Amino acid sequence: MMNDMDIQGLIPPIPTPFDDQERLALDQLRSNLERWNTCGFSGYVVLGSNGEFVHLTERERLSALEVARDAIPPNLLFIAGCSFQSTAETIIYLKQAARLGANAALVNAPFYYKSAMTASRLLAHFRRVADESPIPILLYNVPQFTGLTLPVQTVAQLAEHSNIWGIKDSSGDIGVLSNILRLTPETFRVLIGSASAFFPGLALGAHGAVLAVSSIAWEACLEIMRAVHSGRHRRARDLSLRLLPVAAAVTTQFDIGGLKAALELRGFYGGPPRSPLTSLCEEARAELQQILRASGLFPELES
Amino acid sequence: MMNDMDIQGLIPPIPTPFDDQERLALDQLRSNLERWNTCGFSGYVVLGSNGEFVHLTERERLSALEVARDAIPPNLLFIAGCSFQSTAETIIYLKQAARLGANAALVNAPFYYKSAMTASRLLAHFRRVADESPIPILLYNVPQFTGLTLPVQTVAQLAEHSNIWGIKDSSGDIGVLSNILRLTPETFRVLIGSASAFFPGLALGAHGAVLAVSSIAWEACLEIMRAVHSGRHRRARDLSLRLLPVAAAVTTQFDIGGLKAALELRGFYGGPPRSPLTSLCEEARAELQQILRASGLFPELES
Amino acid sequence: MMNDMDIQGLIPPIPTPFDDQERLALDQLRSNLERWNTCGFSGYVVLGSNGEFVHLTERERLSALEVARDAIPPNLLFIAGCSFQSTAETIIYLKQAARLGANAALVNAPFYYKSAMTASRLLAHFRRVADESPIPILLYNVPQFTGLTLPVQTVAQLAEHSNIWGIKDSSGDIGVLSNILRLTPETFRVLIGSASAFFPGLALGAHGAVLAVSSIAWEACLEIMRAVHSGRHRRARDLSLRLLPVAAAVTTQFDIGGLKAALELRGFYGGPPRSPLTSLCEEARAELQQILRASGLFPELES
Amino acid sequence: MMNDMDIQGLIPPIPTPFDDQERLALDQLRSNLERWNTCGFSGYVVLGSNGEFVHLTERERLSALEVARDAIPPNLLFIAGCSFQSTAETIIYLKQAARLGANAALVNAPFYYKSAMTASRLLAHFRRVADESPIPILLYNVPQFTGLTLPVQTVAQLAEHSNIWGIKDSSGDIGVLSNILRLTPETFRVLIGSASAFFPGLALGAHGAVLAVSSIAWEACLEIMRAVHSGRHRRARDLSLRLLPVAAAVTTQFDIGGLKAALELRGFYGGPPRSPLTSLCEEARAELQQILRASGLFPELES
Repeated sequence: MMNDMDIQGLIPPIPTPFDDQERLALDQLRSNLERWNTCGFSGYVVLGSNGEFVHLTERERLSALEVARDAIPPNLLFIAGCSFQSTAETIIYLKQAARLGANAALVNAPFYYKSAMTASRLLAHFRRVADESPIPILLYNVPQFTGLTLPVQTVAQLAEHSNIWGIKDSSGDIGVLSNILRLTPETFRVLIGSASAFFPGLALGAHGAVLAVSSIAWEACLEIMRAVHSGRHRRARDLSLRLLPVAAAVTTQFDIGGLKAALELRGFYGGPPRSPLTSLCEEARAELQQILRASGLFPELES
Repeated sequence: MMNDMDIQGLIPPIPTPFDDQERLALDQLRSNLERWNTCGFSGYVVLGSNGEFVHLTERERLSALEVARDAIPPNLLFIAGCSFQSTAETIIYLKQAARLGANAALVNAPFYYKSAMTASRLLAHFRRVADESPIPILLYNVPQFTGLTLPVQTVAQLAEHSNIWGIKDSSGDIGVLSNILRLTPETFRVLIGSASAFFPGLALGAHGAVLAVSSIAWEACLEIMRAVHSGRHRRARDLSLRLLPVAAAVTTQFDIGGLKAALELRGFYGGPPRSPLTSLCEEARAELQQILRASGLFPELES
Repeated sequence: MMNDMDIQGLIPPIPTPFDDQERLALDQLRSNLERWNTCGFSGYVVLGSNGEFVHLTERERLSALEVARDAIPPNLLFIAGCSFQSTAETIIYLKQAARLGANAALVNAPFYYKSAMTASRLLAHFRRVADESPIPILLYNVPQFTGLTLPVQTVAQLAEHSNIWGIKDSSGDIGVLSNILRLTPETFRVLIGSASAFFPGLALGAHGAVLAVSSIAWEACLEIMRAVHSGRHRRARDLSLRLLPVAAAVTTQFDIGGLKAALELRGFYGGPPRSPLTSLCEEARAELQQILRASGLFPELES
Repeated sequence: MMNDMDIQGLIPPIPTPFDDQERLALDQLRSNLERWNTCGFSGYVVLGSNGEFVHLTERERLSALEVARDAIPPNLLFIAGCSFQSTAETIIYLKQAARLGANAALVNAPFYYKSAMTASRLLAHFRRVADESPIPILLYNVPQFTGLTLPVQTVAQLAEHSNIWGIKDSSGDIGVLSNILRLTPETFRVLIGSASAFFPGLALGAHGAVLAVSSIAWEACLEIMRAVHSGRHRRARDLSLRLLPVAAAVTTQFDIGGLKAALELRGFYGGPPRSPLTSLCEEARAELQQILRASGLFPELES
């Protein structure tokens, strides 16, 4: 039960599976979750950026949330991702997600009219969303996709809202992360969304991480967290440097197609992303495998 | 009839009206169109960026297209705007738009996963969309909203597709516009989407313009086009410099709320944009009115 | 004599010649100028960005100015380029340049501490420079090198200074150019510094151009200017589109090494740029030659 | 003696003092250094970005180095800053700096022709500089001033040169810093140049820091380093969050004028920066003092 829900720990933003016709593959979503359930995660972000939220229809989103609710055990966090441009549509979706059993939602800033997204409009938007949402929300700062950075002062003001429980900061900007930690109360949960900021952010006191790479490299990620918490910084640092090229491979270098190919290497269902994204060609797949092997983080891949 | 449809001339990307509860105001859409029908435009873009495409639900989009089809006379172009992230959803919508009577569609590039949008993926996406679309498509280059520029070489390759008839370039980059004109055949229609590139782009041979400011300043825009075509460049230049602050006011300075306030000054229905966008406060409204007056382009506003 | 000096027309920002040991080659500077003197230019910018101002020592700069003064006939403009970070050093150099006979100076904004270059500091800097300079100055806006854009309002304020006669705008941003023309008096000379803005800028009323490509393609550039002034816009447009790939080749594509290689193709002294810039390899040289040939602007290069 | 020189620890990039006529104030340089000599630093960067290298004439630079050599005791590192655009001028200056007793040099990348600064040209430039320099060099990555980022792979290749001993990375990008640490040998010294990356970078294994803020807040900076080295991460983190607004105040917020005003608050000579930079107005000075007080890092300023 989530009565005393705490948002912390390691939380993968899971990819959404499609079959080879790019149709939503709900059985594969379920089976992947069943395996992840045994890995030691604190919960999941379902339908985040890595979950191709923007590639799903409304109906598909609800189906995916339903299956996820069924497959995620009650002791793990079920966070629904969300990226709409209008305040009203955001609220409608949050009510649906709550009804379907999500524990919290990760809410992207509206960004299409980016130069119009002044601090005061962002404040008003998120406050109204938080007022209306039946479940707590986490702010989502992901300038690499949105072209917009949530101002740190705005985050600090929003942190005072009782239904805004934290933030996922994927900017990778350690100064932004530091200032968020500096300007928000300890109860405001700061989740790191960028592998390069993972160990440094934990050292700075962040509460957890939502990392694409964790869905394929949970052992290393969990060990980094344990090492930081037990003061073994050299161990955390060494693992975190080895994690870097793996994380780059499944995000900036090969994007979601790369993440899905890596899932296959680890025995999960991968499948294609939706067009215009593409699956990896054989050459890229071999390079990806080589990067995973070279990291030394996946003994099963070394022969 | 659009049998011998030519995409050229002055085409406003019309705002979508909402009532004071931010509900879609279809009657006001109709009445605005009825007045615009008398202004000398070649047609309309309905549900483009200025039409808040991204703020409408699927159902609302179809309703708006239906009303627009009804209100736009057959001799004027009816271009449906479109901005989806997935190839499949783009195609479904284009089929709906065609069924509802749109003559063509203005299709934005997918942009959420911007660093993954390589030239080859953009090519594949637009080719598949054009293959499947029952109506001709116009490419839409609008980096200020998408954070992504369509490469000029990609545009040149796409111009060879028989169902890709042209481009709206809102980049404002006269070098990009020049190179598009240089690298595409004369039959590929190049529409200027930025007021600062309007007169220069016409002088360079662009075929028309899709300008937000034209929905409130059609007299000046049409006179600029006539002046260019009849070789009166000094007249065109003088009007175009006077148009600049007005165009900036209803786009970058006061955004869609400003455009809607300006519509009210010219006797149309304006109303609010949808949240998180906002209506103009009184002070901004007064400043906007002053900018319109100072331009000398609206004698009715001077007293 | 320059008593009634007017800053207009076509003005190449000439490259500074070095020998194959990268030593300043003053004889070649002289001989190049002697040939350019017959081409129909209004004058020269010596030691601008294309003249590798930033690669010369103080002593070399003065030598180059001396030779230029000697080789430039009195009826042509001799404009000295200048790019320093401190106000004081700028003023000292302007006094030297004036003493050596320069008619005017092209003065870059200080840009190293770019985020500190507020409008008020830029105003104060340029006003003090203009107060102290014995010769009129032209502002120089070149964000591609400086990472800093002179705000249009600042340019408009500086245009009121009696010793600031104009601006070279190399931003290529036709909106910036338009607003400068809109906000400054007709006596303030606006020179286009970007080939993609050349014809459009002339159509907008700019007074002249300072174009790298003009040092190798003066015939086409002068014909474009004549065509604009006599109302033959189609001719101007056609030439300007053919000029574009040539201009790109000698600037963004192959940079100053490319410009110098192109000079050699046209019978001038080229030589290497200074390190870290490099001469073109044979392959690049062949590609450059092909671009010049394909433009159709250099009949002598076609066989 | 520097025979067994190790480049590590805390190294302030000291400001260069000017009198109220903006003349170089060598006595104040000496007296400031004498006081800093007692603070626990490992050495100094003289004439870096904070030392207004770009605002000094050649003669002034040499004078400043001479005085610094005299005032810096032999057991402290004397690193000469350096930012030229040409390879040749860089080498000449490094020879002068070596002759005047500098132990090492911090060498900025050439950046004026930024789009021409390909990886291969940067490699060739730094290799030639390192070949010719009598003293070891440190690479300097400072994109906020240069508009250019040294590619991590280029840094890794340059790290193999026997006369390139390390890098100062002021990007503040923890991913860049991590990758530099990952791709270079342990003997390559990585110095953090951005306060927001200070504690995280130390946790990642960086060897030291060159921080503007350290010239006024050495006690906190040294305590952070001691805390990291002795495993007291919570202490390091707490101090580092308190340091952030102070560091921002003397860099991005109030720039070098702010740093000099803060020096005055701590009993050093401050004086004005050179134009176009300016001294702080009274209001800014009061705000700066308030920021220092509020940090709790300067008990002497609290009353």
